[in-house]
Amino acid sequence: MGNSGLEWKRESSRKVFDCPVFCVNECICRSPDGQRRTYTVMDAADWAIVVPVLEISGKKEFILVRQWRHGSQELSLEFPGGVFEPGEDAPAAAARELQEETAWQAGKIRKLGEFRPNPALMSNTVHIFLAEDLHFTGAQDLDEDEYIETLQVKPRELIEGMGRPPYVHALMGSALTLYLREYPQLV
Amino acid sequence: MGNSGLEWKRESSRKVFDCPVFCVNECICRSPDGQRRTYTVMDAADWAIVVPVLEISGKKEFILVRQWRHGSQELSLEFPGGVFEPGEDAPAAAARELQEETAWQAGKIRKLGEFRPNPALMSNTVHIFLAEDLHFTGAQDLDEDEYIETLQVKPRELIEGMGRPPYVHALMGSALTLYLREYPQLV
Repeated sequence: MGNSGLEWKRESSRKVFDCPVFCVNECICRSPDGQRRTYTVMDAADWAIVVPVLEISGKKEFILVRQWRHGSQELSLEFPGGVFEPGEDAPAAAARELQEETAWQAGKIRKLGEFRPNPALMSNTVHIFLAEDLHFTGAQDLDEDEYIETLQVKPRELIEGMGRPPYVHALMGSALTLYLREYPQLV
Repeated sequence: MGNSGLEWKRESSRKVFDCPVFCVNECICRSPDGQRRTYTVMDAADWAIVVPVLEISGKKEFILVRQWRHGSQELSLEFPGGVFEPGEDAPAAAARELQEETAWQAGKIRKLGEFRPNPALMSNTVHIFLAEDLHFTGAQDLDEDEYIETLQVKPRELIEGMGRPPYVHALMGSALTLYLREYPQLV
């Protein structure tokens, strides 16, 4: 958008907290008109969310995962997804997470867009993929601390459920927006 | 969803970092089959996102805000919104943030749903509101470090732009999903 008179400059950054999932930095920033302010921002890995769509007798169904979320302390019903491994690109991460979490392998995988999960606080990006032409491989490949159930849900149920438990994962809502743009007849 | 065999129990929580916007806790948790693991989670305030819709000659337009985001270090074009003030309820926060950031006051404000912005890492909730019957009050009421431009955008432009700069705020995508559920003819 060019220099709009709204842009800040980051003058320095200092790590003040670190853990395996993210680190926290205090950043000194200069406003468009010269104020100096300190902001706290988090660096975390990029990750992928996958919208896996089955075609059953000509009708679409989503494959979802149900799992415990330690931040919100509740069960959540979501699209599969997860953090990139070191050196992995976005489509590879999406395909791997889909297969590990759901035991479904994608014949076709295609990027729908990307978002900043929380641009005020976090530097990372979530990459949204559509997975189609799905083949069941028989078994999940879960981490030792992952407990994940998979289930198939009709588009109407998901759309009507969004924004209330168990459909409360905000970034699933973002992914659904990109999917429905391509399939508006489902809304 | 009842006791599904997927639920963890949090046994203890210890604050390990604090700043004005959030704190970080290390939580010791017990898995469904008795593993003990440590997870890092953040507590932050709830906030509101407002979808402000003007009717101009029978056509809808969104009021958006353009602002610098310190996490992603870029300009972002978003629905207005912000963090609850102490003691404030969700509709009051939504109405106040709309008026402060855009100078538009809502005659009608109605909740569309709520999400966990990042349920793996964060405990908080974002509340999504629709604002209609809008009246221009003449002036924004910005914090000293807020630099915000407002603009009006047609639904088609926003829907087509989602998932690419400047429409990269994930939680705006979540809000748009809830709005489009009510107005599917716009998709």
